[in-house]
Amino acid sequence: MDCAIATGGKARAANSAGASLRIAQVAPLFESVPPRLYGGTERVVAYLTDTLVELGHDVTLFASGDSLTRAKLRSGRARALRLDDSPLKSDLACHLSMLHDVRRCGGDFDVIHFHTDILHLPLFEATAARTLTTLHGRLDLPDLHDVFRRWPMYPLVSISNDQRRPMPNANWIATVAHGLPLELYPKAGDGAGGYLAFVGRVAQEKRPDRAIRIAQRVGMQLKIAAKVDPADARYFNEVIEPLIDEPHVEFLGELSEAEKRTLLEGARALLFPIDWPEPFGLVMIEAMACGTPVIAWRRGSVPEVVEDGVSGFIVDSEDAAVAACMHLDDIDRHGVRAAFERRFSSRVMAQRYAGLYRELARGRDGDAGRVADTMSEI
Amino acid sequence: MDCAIATGGKARAANSAGASLRIAQVAPLFESVPPRLYGGTERVVAYLTDTLVELGHDVTLFASGDSLTRAKLRSGRARALRLDDSPLKSDLACHLSMLHDVRRCGGDFDVIHFHTDILHLPLFEATAARTLTTLHGRLDLPDLHDVFRRWPMYPLVSISNDQRRPMPNANWIATVAHGLPLELYPKAGDGAGGYLAFVGRVAQEKRPDRAIRIAQRVGMQLKIAAKVDPADARYFNEVIEPLIDEPHVEFLGELSEAEKRTLLEGARALLFPIDWPEPFGLVMIEAMACGTPVIAWRRGSVPEVVEDGVSGFIVDSEDAAVAACMHLDDIDRHGVRAAFERRFSSRVMAQRYAGLYRELARGRDGDAGRVADTMSEI
Repeated sequence: MDCAIATGGKARAANSAGASLRIAQVAPLFESVPPRLYGGTERVVAYLTDTLVELGHDVTLFASGDSLTRAKLRSGRARALRLDDSPLKSDLACHLSMLHDVRRCGGDFDVIHFHTDILHLPLFEATAARTLTTLHGRLDLPDLHDVFRRWPMYPLVSISNDQRRPMPNANWIATVAHGLPLELYPKAGDGAGGYLAFVGRVAQEKRPDRAIRIAQRVGMQLKIAAKVDPADARYFNEVIEPLIDEPHVEFLGELSEAEKRTLLEGARALLFPIDWPEPFGLVMIEAMACGTPVIAWRRGSVPEVVEDGVSGFIVDSEDAAVAACMHLDDIDRHGVRAAFERRFSSRVMAQRYAGLYRELARGRDGDAGRVADTMSEI
Repeated sequence: MDCAIATGGKARAANSAGASLRIAQVAPLFESVPPRLYGGTERVVAYLTDTLVELGHDVTLFASGDSLTRAKLRSGRARALRLDDSPLKSDLACHLSMLHDVRRCGGDFDVIHFHTDILHLPLFEATAARTLTTLHGRLDLPDLHDVFRRWPMYPLVSISNDQRRPMPNANWIATVAHGLPLELYPKAGDGAGGYLAFVGRVAQEKRPDRAIRIAQRVGMQLKIAAKVDPADARYFNEVIEPLIDEPHVEFLGELSEAEKRTLLEGARALLFPIDWPEPFGLVMIEAMACGTPVIAWRRGSVPEVVEDGVSGFIVDSEDAAVAACMHLDDIDRHGVRAAFERRFSSRVMAQRYAGLYRELARGRDGDAGRVADTMSEI
């Protein structure tokens, strides 16, 4: 494998503030970057990567070969796993191979940014201090805590403060909210479709059943744009499928980005009736980008993302959600869009990350690095 | 974590032939060792571990805490994953934690024997030459080949010669067939139940549909003792469930070891109508231990396990399987048992492995080790 990909002929000054950095982004291989359909992590990696390039950095993206990026693409697998129909594939194997390749090229980068959950932890122990790991998932799993106790040297980024709660003493260095390119959903829609929207996965913890009941009680149409994972097939068949036959419900399946934009621009509100500690909830800021208010349960990241009364309503019950639907006229859709632009653009996200990269790159040339790189006793 | 578990007070002489070795066995955490119900890999690890203890070795077993072993048990997770009902568990995380613990204790062992597929490859690069990895699964996955090209320094054991076929140039050092304790299925049964048996998983590639048709054509009862994995639920519901309503079929679900023994002792034959490159097929030797002839398709390991005309019949079609059912009287059940005892006892298996451990342990103290421990260019 040829590693000479990110080192240009010219000398670089990565440690000066504002200077261009050589950055590796390492995405999961489940979806392409960006995904064709659903796929939160790979979508965020796409926006971050392209925006870092816009900001003048030298970025290499390790991802599936069917990805589309403004960075240099290093294929970790010809096709993303989920849309590869072959039964003879191994998630674990292709990720290990990609991480091996990243390690071999590690010297070419000032910092390596992992979005691969925990699988890279055994491979980069010696250089952990110049890596960054964004954790995209829920952290209330005891098995995970055991892992981070054993590999404490990796600088970690949370995507909401609430996400850290089960693991407050891990090696957190920042919380960086997700962001979207302003041009992806370019304007506040008018909500003229008059319907409510539910977007995401049909899963127990996302509570599409609540969305269906709320819409029924307020006499509005509900459009559901959702993926059904194999793991959720039983929940879909037994709980949700009987409900979507009701006349006020329209089930659209998984949508492309363009279709989702049309859906959200026309929606009166997004329902986000979650029943789990959602670490971020990308669809909330997608709705906000379209000027669509978000009616969301007070769980996980919700109070950090939704400004109650400005970009939507934070509720604790179906009664409160029904009441919120009655007050949608109180929300200015252009104010929702403005709240999105202020806090959740991909530029805000990329600038935050670039600041962290710079700190880590500086540490590498210093005496010890800002992040301890020693194994603590377990 | 305390590592002083395998080092006794007395000096050891691991390199002399026949001397006691300090051996770590590292099992997957999906099932306990041995499993309560289905679970081929963990079952073999249980038999190997206990037999190595019987042979006088100092064995430490890394496995789920609910395992039962004659070796020293190091818990990698309190409960095995499959029978742990918590939704908040991580297969990957608990395996990584266990492997981290194995590495910290690595100096205590002459050899470490991994049954954990590929996940340990990034953690033991520096000491790979005194490890052994038995690959228990199918190897015709391109993603896997990429992994073994990147980590070529691990000595590998196949469980049949056929298993190697997709990866002939990997670092194979031996093929070691699985074995069972002679007392587990202690005698040839009489087959007086008069039925045919199908034992394993209800999965497309195991072809229970063939078994059902064969039994119908020969006018015999078929008893199916099988697990339905979530991944196979659809195949079960759509293809198999309608067929098991037929009067000649009895579906027993998953059986305990004792129930399986009763089933096999009373069976006229085991049907093994596989449609995939089965790497070993433990149930074939379980049947043979009970004196029960095996009627098996010529795929994967089958010609290496079944002696045609002695321990069963190797067939290529349903017609041939039906014909074989007519000739079951030609097979002497005590001859089947004798074939099992000769080739597939856990003692034969453990002695084979102990010989390999000894070679690897010798290599460690030699100049270079018998297995190259260098990264080849990819």
